[in-house]
Amino acid sequence: MAERRETRPVSVGAIIIGGGAPVAVQSMTNTDTRDVDATLAQIHELAGAGCEIARVAVPHADSLDAFERICAASPLPVVADIHFDHRLAVEATRRGAAKLRINPGNIGATGRVDAVIDAAGEAGIPIRIGVNAGSLAAEYADRDWPLPEKLVASAQSFCEHFSARGFEDIVVSAKASSVQPTVEAYRLLADRVPYPLHIGVTEAGTVRSGTVKSAVGLGILIAEGIGDTLRVSLTAPPVEEVHVAWEILAALDVRRRGPELVSCPTCGRCQVDLVPIATEVERRLAATEAPLKVAVMGCAVNGPGEAREADVGIAAGRGVGLLFAHGEVVRKVPEAEIVDALMAEVERLGAE
Amino acid sequence: MAERRETRPVSVGAIIIGGGAPVAVQSMTNTDTRDVDATLAQIHELAGAGCEIARVAVPHADSLDAFERICAASPLPVVADIHFDHRLAVEATRRGAAKLRINPGNIGATGRVDAVIDAAGEAGIPIRIGVNAGSLAAEYADRDWPLPEKLVASAQSFCEHFSARGFEDIVVSAKASSVQPTVEAYRLLADRVPYPLHIGVTEAGTVRSGTVKSAVGLGILIAEGIGDTLRVSLTAPPVEEVHVAWEILAALDVRRRGPELVSCPTCGRCQVDLVPIATEVERRLAATEAPLKVAVMGCAVNGPGEAREADVGIAAGRGVGLLFAHGEVVRKVPEAEIVDALMAEVERLGAE
Repeated sequence: MAERRETRPVSVGAIIIGGGAPVAVQSMTNTDTRDVDATLAQIHELAGAGCEIARVAVPHADSLDAFERICAASPLPVVADIHFDHRLAVEATRRGAAKLRINPGNIGATGRVDAVIDAAGEAGIPIRIGVNAGSLAAEYADRDWPLPEKLVASAQSFCEHFSARGFEDIVVSAKASSVQPTVEAYRLLADRVPYPLHIGVTEAGTVRSGTVKSAVGLGILIAEGIGDTLRVSLTAPPVEEVHVAWEILAALDVRRRGPELVSCPTCGRCQVDLVPIATEVERRLAATEAPLKVAVMGCAVNGPGEAREADVGIAAGRGVGLLFAHGEVVRKVPEAEIVDALMAEVERLGAE
Repeated sequence: MAERRETRPVSVGAIIIGGGAPVAVQSMTNTDTRDVDATLAQIHELAGAGCEIARVAVPHADSLDAFERICAASPLPVVADIHFDHRLAVEATRRGAAKLRINPGNIGATGRVDAVIDAAGEAGIPIRIGVNAGSLAAEYADRDWPLPEKLVASAQSFCEHFSARGFEDIVVSAKASSVQPTVEAYRLLADRVPYPLHIGVTEAGTVRSGTVKSAVGLGILIAEGIGDTLRVSLTAPPVEEVHVAWEILAALDVRRRGPELVSCPTCGRCQVDLVPIATEVERRLAATEAPLKVAVMGCAVNGPGEAREADVGIAAGRGVGLLFAHGEVVRKVPEAEIVDALMAEVERLGAE
């Protein structure tokens, strides 16, 4: 793991992005913003899963009143995501937005972008300059450069414009829907701008392929010390994005929320029905906040070793499981009682 | 992406591991090996999903006859996975194994390991030296070294012993259940041994966390040019391991099997019900072998850009979708016909 890159911190409500703060987890609602109850319900669900910043689209003027009520009642700071119409962005700064996300290229004329910058400055909130391969300004899209260079040049020119206007509360993103140009763009950004980076692979796909693309791309970046906040983009209920984001952070020991489950893939040696046992343990562990390492292992090859290394573990044999806690054998339990016995130990150690 | 590390190639049936061959996808059956029909059915399912090498546990002498029949009928080369009893390994070389996987530390005395080496040499098949954190020999486990150094020192000492006996048909793995020690161990191995590497994060967990851990760990390694064959380890039906393995390779453009689906996460701007559309497109694309890029996008922000960049794409608006092929608008289609229209274009381009 590389050391984390130093960046200029910005505040999004009570959450700090950059400057060495923990990598913040965010997601975006996919409800109709005008439906305040549905949007707030989704934000509560996201918060419950560990989301720290919620982004909400403000596509039209008739969403603004709803957006204001959402901001007022939201348990998380709310980012207004705005394209095309700069007046919506200006108005959102007065309705409770904790941050704006714009692609200045979609806002158009400099005067309009400046109106947004000034409104954010007045409200004291940051702006994310979010450049995407799918909406790159023609000025850059038409150049004969590699995609990462085009994305970064576009983002840099906006950063320079914001900075020249005296606005430095900037977060930057430059996303493509493929992993390699995304990784390369963020490496370039990390070299070239002092601002915190919002990392993500955009339009990554459905649950399986989107999870893999995001984990590969964001995993490579985070292991290199790049990234101050992340959003996993999945064509799926947004709460799944939050689960995957935490799994990526946990995989690299950057942040952990709740326990880690080690479980074996099972094979022809396995003498208990392990998949439902592991799945049930995972389900019950979702309610546990203690950062324990829990092992659910199916055989005598790696089972005792992994179960001993974990805080709580089970190594299964023929219809029984050997229960370990803190590396010591506690007792043998019958297959049907494995989940309960394991969870009792987890709760006992969690309480400690 | 780094250049791929050069390794000494070995043959596993018709599949080559190392020496610049495509990174081979493998998995392991979790049926009872004595159940020949169930094991062969699972191998056929794995092969259908793109698995290229199937590993099968041979836990007891009463599995040997079944193992022989499995090898004879398998559409894939079969690796015998053996622990503790060297006689099973020796016997497996005579029953049709295309490769052995052992952890020599579990086999015990040098004479026994040598009997296995000689039998594999006679059969002309390679051996994977598979060291796992959960079953590290006490000689190394008890040292006050970082885990990656212990894993690699153990693997290296076995490699040296095999090589001194004149056996070089070696594949090496050194797996831990956490990403960082696994990545570090493989980086050390890549520096220190000339043999091809079998990469994997062991006991990675259930579908979500195991997919993320594997994608992060194996993604980092493959992006560094490390890894000649991979096995994703999930507590789930093994066919899921094969799907995830291919997604990892595709995410880094190392290998691709069938189309790539780009789809947006949906947000408050989306005016069609995109998740079921994308899910259905993904399901139908599973039968398509052409390496097309297909985009399913929900709005006017990034939709037209991504749909235009794809081979076939749809950018949805209010209850309709704009169908693109090769960057050109084909026509507007009503929401209910989006999937059929998209798939018709995919089939047309796939036939070209």
